[in-house]
Amino acid sequence: MRPSRRAPDELRAVSLERGVVKYAEGSCLVKFGDTHVLVTATLEDRLPPWLKGQGRGWITAEYGMLPRATLERTRREASAGKQTGRTVEIQRLIGRSLRTAIDLEALGERQITVDCDVLQADGGTRTASITGAWVALADCIKWMKSRNMIKTEVLRANVAAISCGIYNGTPVLDLDYAEDSEAETDANFVMTGDGRIIEVQGTAEKTPFTEAEFLALMALARKGVARLVDLQKLAVA
Amino acid sequence: MRPSRRAPDELRAVSLERGVVKYAEGSCLVKFGDTHVLVTATLEDRLPPWLKGQGRGWITAEYGMLPRATLERTRREASAGKQTGRTVEIQRLIGRSLRTAIDLEALGERQITVDCDVLQADGGTRTASITGAWVALADCIKWMKSRNMIKTEVLRANVAAISCGIYNGTPVLDLDYAEDSEAETDANFVMTGDGRIIEVQGTAEKTPFTEAEFLALMALARKGVARLVDLQKLAVA
Amino acid sequence: MRPSRRAPDELRAVSLERGVVKYAEGSCLVKFGDTHVLVTATLEDRLPPWLKGQGRGWITAEYGMLPRATLERTRREASAGKQTGRTVEIQRLIGRSLRTAIDLEALGERQITVDCDVLQADGGTRTASITGAWVALADCIKWMKSRNMIKTEVLRANVAAISCGIYNGTPVLDLDYAEDSEAETDANFVMTGDGRIIEVQGTAEKTPFTEAEFLALMALARKGVARLVDLQKLAVA
Amino acid sequence: MRPSRRAPDELRAVSLERGVVKYAEGSCLVKFGDTHVLVTATLEDRLPPWLKGQGRGWITAEYGMLPRATLERTRREASAGKQTGRTVEIQRLIGRSLRTAIDLEALGERQITVDCDVLQADGGTRTASITGAWVALADCIKWMKSRNMIKTEVLRANVAAISCGIYNGTPVLDLDYAEDSEAETDANFVMTGDGRIIEVQGTAEKTPFTEAEFLALMALARKGVARLVDLQKLAVA
Amino acid sequence: MRPSRRAPDELRAVSLERGVVKYAEGSCLVKFGDTHVLVTATLEDRLPPWLKGQGRGWITAEYGMLPRATLERTRREASAGKQTGRTVEIQRLIGRSLRTAIDLEALGERQITVDCDVLQADGGTRTASITGAWVALADCIKWMKSRNMIKTEVLRANVAAISCGIYNGTPVLDLDYAEDSEAETDANFVMTGDGRIIEVQGTAEKTPFTEAEFLALMALARKGVARLVDLQKLAVA
Amino acid sequence: MRPSRRAPDELRAVSLERGVVKYAEGSCLVKFGDTHVLVTATLEDRLPPWLKGQGRGWITAEYGMLPRATLERTRREASAGKQTGRTVEIQRLIGRSLRTAIDLEALGERQITVDCDVLQADGGTRTASITGAWVALADCIKWMKSRNMIKTEVLRANVAAISCGIYNGTPVLDLDYAEDSEAETDANFVMTGDGRIIEVQGTAEKTPFTEAEFLALMALARKGVARLVDLQKLAVA
Repeated sequence: MRPSRRAPDELRAVSLERGVVKYAEGSCLVKFGDTHVLVTATLEDRLPPWLKGQGRGWITAEYGMLPRATLERTRREASAGKQTGRTVEIQRLIGRSLRTAIDLEALGERQITVDCDVLQADGGTRTASITGAWVALADCIKWMKSRNMIKTEVLRANVAAISCGIYNGTPVLDLDYAEDSEAETDANFVMTGDGRIIEVQGTAEKTPFTEAEFLALMALARKGVARLVDLQKLAVA
Repeated sequence: MRPSRRAPDELRAVSLERGVVKYAEGSCLVKFGDTHVLVTATLEDRLPPWLKGQGRGWITAEYGMLPRATLERTRREASAGKQTGRTVEIQRLIGRSLRTAIDLEALGERQITVDCDVLQADGGTRTASITGAWVALADCIKWMKSRNMIKTEVLRANVAAISCGIYNGTPVLDLDYAEDSEAETDANFVMTGDGRIIEVQGTAEKTPFTEAEFLALMALARKGVARLVDLQKLAVA
Repeated sequence: MRPSRRAPDELRAVSLERGVVKYAEGSCLVKFGDTHVLVTATLEDRLPPWLKGQGRGWITAEYGMLPRATLERTRREASAGKQTGRTVEIQRLIGRSLRTAIDLEALGERQITVDCDVLQADGGTRTASITGAWVALADCIKWMKSRNMIKTEVLRANVAAISCGIYNGTPVLDLDYAEDSEAETDANFVMTGDGRIIEVQGTAEKTPFTEAEFLALMALARKGVARLVDLQKLAVA
Repeated sequence: MRPSRRAPDELRAVSLERGVVKYAEGSCLVKFGDTHVLVTATLEDRLPPWLKGQGRGWITAEYGMLPRATLERTRREASAGKQTGRTVEIQRLIGRSLRTAIDLEALGERQITVDCDVLQADGGTRTASITGAWVALADCIKWMKSRNMIKTEVLRANVAAISCGIYNGTPVLDLDYAEDSEAETDANFVMTGDGRIIEVQGTAEKTPFTEAEFLALMALARKGVARLVDLQKLAVA
Repeated sequence: MRPSRRAPDELRAVSLERGVVKYAEGSCLVKFGDTHVLVTATLEDRLPPWLKGQGRGWITAEYGMLPRATLERTRREASAGKQTGRTVEIQRLIGRSLRTAIDLEALGERQITVDCDVLQADGGTRTASITGAWVALADCIKWMKSRNMIKTEVLRANVAAISCGIYNGTPVLDLDYAEDSEAETDANFVMTGDGRIIEVQGTAEKTPFTEAEFLALMALARKGVARLVDLQKLAVA
Repeated sequence: MRPSRRAPDELRAVSLERGVVKYAEGSCLVKFGDTHVLVTATLEDRLPPWLKGQGRGWITAEYGMLPRATLERTRREASAGKQTGRTVEIQRLIGRSLRTAIDLEALGERQITVDCDVLQADGGTRTASITGAWVALADCIKWMKSRNMIKTEVLRANVAAISCGIYNGTPVLDLDYAEDSEAETDANFVMTGDGRIIEVQGTAEKTPFTEAEFLALMALARKGVARLVDLQKLAVA
């Protein structure tokens, strides 16, 4: 029995609210249960130096967590003077995942920066971030289209992410914090709507796992991502 | 005529929503028009080293702004590796203001950290932060009382803050960004409900101002703060 | 009775010694009693990036304190790797105050950097810094005039600063450290010679203060600044 | 055809040389072809603060690359003042992987720090690091046993790692830099000798991949890790 | 002919003014011509962690330069966030030199921090710093004696420092900036009053030098240091 | 008797192995007994900003030590976020020493960066670094010549370095760690093959030393450097 009484393959209540920050070209407040992330997409006419003049654009991501998004207050990274390893890992993952969804040539020599700021954390902040970021990105691209800044299709696919894990011996979908902190194995899947894999990260928290266990998690993830992509399509319709 | 068509002594629409972050001992989402700040109050059983063993508590504040809270994206301080001078100034002001409202002896040897994170900025983020922080602080103290952690009254007074400025030659209350960026003179007042001053900061943005002009701003501020304190009382009632 | 036996409206002995650093375009060793600040003004043919090409110059300030300027040694900021919040606040105040005294268009596309380094601190380092900085700035501008670098008048007004506070229930002028650490209320005024206000910062150290108290401080400040401006005029004559 | 003319399931020449640094409790110079990593294991009688008094030890890892380990010189992190995101990601992976191989209770309240420094990089530095780190760790534990510092078995399993990828449409094992920079998909597997998974990370560099492709990579990885574990056993015998 | 018209073995005008900072246990404003350094000695009842409980004290030094001590303004290290390599080198030299002059056991478990801040720089700031630091240190020890904090003699010898160099083919003593920037060879000598060497650093700025040249510099240095030690004795008498 | 049983004027076993890093334009693994340093020379078509357009090149050096190169593990500088004072001092010494050996005009507007990374430290890491760096530099210049990048001779002289010290009252050559930590006096000499001095640094670790003692050390150093230069010539032949 899961602490939340959900079925093993049941997502938490998911919501994707668009247009939540008035200045941003795209924005989304994504909720996976009690995990709430505010995502904005910012379009800028500049590129990282190493990319200039190559006829391609870039998508980059930054991730942060408000100090009291968590049960115990965590130190503000701006005050500590550096981002933690966890933050760096997550923002690199978000950036890579979104770039796979985008035709960077079609974007032109522009950069979109996706900021994912966790207002409240109850497990799965990176997967909620990616899922919401796709919506903010889609809105940013819609904004560009309405100004005739792009001509061909830029978005190649829907991208969403979900965590799975083995909790009390059972593979379960979309771990909340109570499950995550107890799970034997924990995996994050970033996938397209049609079930192809963009990124997969699986970690044995306690003991190594078998290929069969991993395949069970992947099957759950495919199911969860399909549902999330449906919700993305509803949100941007 | 003000860009927002408000009367010179008219506040923006103000809202103070409590209990917005489930983990925090106190929290408040404060809105002054399009300026939105998420405030949390965190109680901890530790003190800065220089205060230990003196039988007194401490209130400290941190301030941050999400990168796309502003018209143009501003660089994330955690990624830049340091807080800007503006951030440091504001969080010191918030901390000082709140400490004046609190009986630190009655608080006991504990620290309350107030985090003010700007989700959207349209002028007056520091005054909104202080006004909302008082509500989060009041809730945190209520939380402590309900657990018998404090015996005597800790909160000595309501504290709220408002900006005033001379815009197009006229003293006006609660400047939004459009006014703030054009104002000749800009002042922030932190006051108690009964009109006493906790902190006043007045700056001539272009040309020095006279005492008479300053007194006109102070009169407006007193009016604005009285209204904000009424709203605080409604919110915590 | 004040610890220094001064009358409530009496400044400490003030001296403004010019030309104390042979390389600087302007310099001043300012003393307010035992508070000693070495100020230099440096002219450079460069501007902050955001100001380039606008036909205007810039004045910026930096502030520092030698480690043993104080009763107890304070950590060297260069070794700590960052400036404290207090330092940042003060140098921003000095810069803003001086810019109001200057016609930035008449200055041309150049930057003057004012460095205020406290050799010995006995209260009022920021007000002594501003008062001495005006003298160093005036000398720097004289240096430019003698080389025909500027044509019209650049200095618009004398600028000086003084602190006031309520000590033992009495409003007093120019607090030294013994008073400052005990004062109920503490305010810094930056004013022009004719009594107009450039910046005012008032803080209730213990209990909120009334408008009447604040006006008493402002009256004292006006008197003190008038005297400081007389001394500035003598110094640069 | 692979640039190195290897068969798709062929590892590069692998060597594991022990005892290469005279001071370290364990050390290994690991070579995967032209990728050379110097690993040391350091035993210390101290623990991270959050782990003290729990009767358990800790394994942590740090990773670095000499500036000219790469084709173009990369900036020295010590001089840049911070570790890159890539470095942080890799050292966290190494630490997690090794901890799974160790019985931390049996280790006692001690920390082993594994330093992996890349002398020359030709792809696969993280997988070579993990594979060599296991050898250095095993030697460190042998050192402890010979001093009667531990009583029960501390090492639970052999751990090795290998990369796989889809290069020119074919799944291949142990990518060198020429392949890695061109691969469509890139995955790193950390496994035990009996084929169970400790960590898996797969990334679509260009287009999303299918589950079938992923399974092909995993099959290759299992084969490669089995061979690496044989070499580890030979090395420590 | 030297730019300053001094004889090859002639020091600049040297002055050693004591008691210049009212809070410090010892202080000295040292001038070697236009090079002016303010030195303070601070006594503290604490030690670096690695020295605790060994029955010995410690002398450490910090060095800084006001931004406009130089012909062109140099960036403030506190604002740059780190000390330059030159600063680090100099403060380590000052600390080592002074420690040789002191009986650290006789000092007891206390630390004296010597701060050397250059107000104006015209070559030889490190040698002026060391020479003045000895005076500040001697005053600090006198202060301790007058409070019966030490019983036996702590100061073992006078220590002074001077630079020499080969300028236009001639060995000269006490280089000013005009000479220093042109010298072929440049050496700094830290010596005791009786001509023994504490530290010697010689650098070929352009072409390597011979042993004979080096010995000529050392002879000059011995002469200069003897004169500086005479001045130290006069100063502390 | 020296701990290593060497004669007072006897070097440790020295080896200079070239071509050890396949990407670098020049490289050398230098061993002075158990002190092992990996040196690479990197040629780049860029210059420090202050040197641009002057028709001259530049040689710069960086130095690092692997964390477990030492008996006790030392903290990784990249993780600490800054280089220690010792590191900064050493890399500045290496850079200065090599520049004296090079005709910077003949090099053209290019920079060679010499990285010296200590794999194992047993005293004398800076002198081994300089001696090996000369070999890597020579190979880098040979590489340039073979591509017709330089026309005239760039290398002006062989440069090598050695430490000497007074150990148990006897002047000895090439101190290992056991001697270095006990020596009364310690000096490092950087010299050319014909016995001229590039840099000399002598430090009294405990008591000041005499000129006669210093000359004895210099005589030993000349002997040692002559031998090292012979080995350099053999290595590059």
